[in-house]
Amino acid sequence: MKRINKTELGDILLPNSKVRAFQHERDLVKRLWDHGFAVVRAPASGSKAKRIAYPDVVAIYKGRVIACEVKTVRKSRSIYLDGSQVDKLLEFSRRAGGDAFIAIKVVGSGTWLFIPIDKLEKIDSKRYKIPKELLNSGLHLEALVSVVKGVKRLTEFKE
Amino acid sequence: MKRINKTELGDILLPNSKVRAFQHERDLVKRLWDHGFAVVRAPASGSKAKRIAYPDVVAIYKGRVIACEVKTVRKSRSIYLDGSQVDKLLEFSRRAGGDAFIAIKVVGSGTWLFIPIDKLEKIDSKRYKIPKELLNSGLHLEALVSVVKGVKRLTEFKE
Repeated sequence: MKRINKTELGDILLPNSKVRAFQHERDLVKRLWDHGFAVVRAPASGSKAKRIAYPDVVAIYKGRVIACEVKTVRKSRSIYLDGSQVDKLLEFSRRAGGDAFIAIKVVGSGTWLFIPIDKLEKIDSKRYKIPKELLNSGLHLEALVSVVKGVKRLTEFKE
Repeated sequence: MKRINKTELGDILLPNSKVRAFQHERDLVKRLWDHGFAVVRAPASGSKAKRIAYPDVVAIYKGRVIACEVKTVRKSRSIYLDGSQVDKLLEFSRRAGGDAFIAIKVVGSGTWLFIPIDKLEKIDSKRYKIPKELLNSGLHLEALVSVVKGVKRLTEFKE
């Protein structure tokens, strides 16, 4: 447990790296909320409930559910993900009857890009990859919102 | 900010009162998860996002959403709720297209009782009440699960 460089967040104490991750998640929550979604972000600690899959952010609009794992990049590049992280996201969205995405914030520009989970490349049993080209063709937030509010299923969306 | 009687919860530090509240929420999360729901509980701190309504626990089963505010009692008694808390829960469930409940744990017995939010008694502009008789007629967890998994809307359920 790291106790250096802690920052107060409400009445809890967290290492700065977690605070930064929270700030990005909170940015996503606010944007989706402003588009009319019901949104909830995962708690800081799921440590006692490891078998339960908490996505970073869950957004719901009239029964349509999207579950997101949040990543940040400073520039366009390939992204690698743990297989267990992807499996948890899939399990959550299967139960919820929703769609799962990796939500990537390009930190400099403030742009959010969404990659449907079924487009990830499986490298081996433990890792998935989002190649740079796939990231660049990601769905922008406004497009995601239109699709969810429309009649199409998200998985029918063609970039 | 209280810093006495803190307990470690994963890698964050919390006052014991919050830890106890979390343990009850986590119990509810686990039970709903074991019934096949996708479940998420709210983060410890929503302090920077006060205009965003986070229910304590959100559970989803194939697009059907239930949003819960969690309360605990040691014995059967009337319960009072802040109007703002009720308003936030209603706003979330309106956006999500779901149903809202006050989930009450009777601590001694471990029983959970669910009161649909439209059954609360409004006392004045700032407070709602769950009278003791209403609490006693609350929906048990198994009944709630059956209704959500069935074809009925939750609001059609008659005790």
